[in-house]
Amino acid sequence: MKREQAGSENRLEGRNAVLEALRSGRSVDKIYVQAGLHDGPIQTILREARKHDSIVSFVTRERLDQMSETGNHQGVIAQAASYEYASVEDILERARQKGEPPFLILLDEIEDPHNLGAIIRTANLAGAHGVIITKHRAAGLTATAMKASAGAANFTPVAKVTNLGTVIDRLKKEGIWFVCADMGGTRMYDLDLKGPIGLVIGNEGAGVSRLVKEKCDFTASIPMKGDIDSLNASVAAGVLAYEIVRQRG
Amino acid sequence: MKREQAGSENRLEGRNAVLEALRSGRSVDKIYVQAGLHDGPIQTILREARKHDSIVSFVTRERLDQMSETGNHQGVIAQAASYEYASVEDILERARQKGEPPFLILLDEIEDPHNLGAIIRTANLAGAHGVIITKHRAAGLTATAMKASAGAANFTPVAKVTNLGTVIDRLKKEGIWFVCADMGGTRMYDLDLKGPIGLVIGNEGAGVSRLVKEKCDFTASIPMKGDIDSLNASVAAGVLAYEIVRQRG
Repeated sequence: MKREQAGSENRLEGRNAVLEALRSGRSVDKIYVQAGLHDGPIQTILREARKHDSIVSFVTRERLDQMSETGNHQGVIAQAASYEYASVEDILERARQKGEPPFLILLDEIEDPHNLGAIIRTANLAGAHGVIITKHRAAGLTATAMKASAGAANFTPVAKVTNLGTVIDRLKKEGIWFVCADMGGTRMYDLDLKGPIGLVIGNEGAGVSRLVKEKCDFTASIPMKGDIDSLNASVAAGVLAYEIVRQRG
Repeated sequence: MKREQAGSENRLEGRNAVLEALRSGRSVDKIYVQAGLHDGPIQTILREARKHDSIVSFVTRERLDQMSETGNHQGVIAQAASYEYASVEDILERARQKGEPPFLILLDEIEDPHNLGAIIRTANLAGAHGVIITKHRAAGLTATAMKASAGAANFTPVAKVTNLGTVIDRLKKEGIWFVCADMGGTRMYDLDLKGPIGLVIGNEGAGVSRLVKEKCDFTASIPMKGDIDSLNASVAAGVLAYEIVRQRG
């Protein structure tokens, strides 16, 4: 289904795009430069590339034409590092630009990269503006997580924070309500999930940690009719995210 | 991915999987426990094992690592009596006994044992009466799938059939309606999913096969607001199963 189209989000084309990426400190893995070009801007790019230890490959113009998606590479195409974490502010800005009340998914120490990837995939399709993960005791955007996200991590921003509680406190001041997924809560159908919202999903084994749970405004529970304790974390995130979609719809 | 070692359907790995098997009354022949572990969950497993006359063997961590297929045994591996697939009739009988309209989940060649396990887990908690899988080109109840089911496979019957289309034809005569998950369908909120129902989930890459889709009465789609093609198969199954729960509730 989803052949990852060679990370087109990571492909930079044209002199300005490549130079800006290098100067912004974004990690650029490889730069393809048209052999025989020696003008000023190209010299600047080569100098910056050396400074940042990017690998430079001199190729024919025909090769660049083949690689190009924009049709206007100006003699230089770069492959940037696979993932750049966003900031929480980037995520809020995205909601603002779309003119929608913010919808964030916060992961309290999700450890399995398959779950992380599946949740980013869900966030993308449910129209969430971004995903916030923790730095410690949690899966990051490894190749496995990227692959499990089926390309969604190239579209939906993911921010990595040190302390989820601190972030929740700050975002509450901006009018965002937080709902955490937990068994002891109110049935999700009985909660109003329409406004600016942050959905908090807990660790696969331990659930949402006590400190984070205390900061949440509501606890939402998925009705459980069976014999076991809990859904898979990425399934629970999907069911709750789509209850938000239904209510917003 | 799918090394199907002989007898792997009988191997249980991890604390939850072993404990749930013991508690569900499933026959567990032998339990290998890592020598030196004395924490609460291990004590509970040892107590349950005594109660059920399972043989316990204390072994080194290295031995468990060698035996492990999942790579995450958490200090305990059990050899259960072989998994007994249910029949489709068993599943219908379960609905009858509960006095509920049948709710089945049919998997059209789900290949990833993690997805299979997560879907059985969802089926259990969403109150589905059973799961029907295909014999060919599909994951069976291996140790990995059992572990991913978090014990749910001990409670929710799973039937394995040769031809999903034939089974659908037969069950339609008993008054069950079939809805398949696919993008081109009616928004799930706009369908009546309250009666006797079979939810068909397709293969991770190819979706529901054409022949099976043609047999279904409806096609349900999950609203997609994002940039990528589809949700993870077990997440999609969860979202649709819980739409059925909501409508039935």
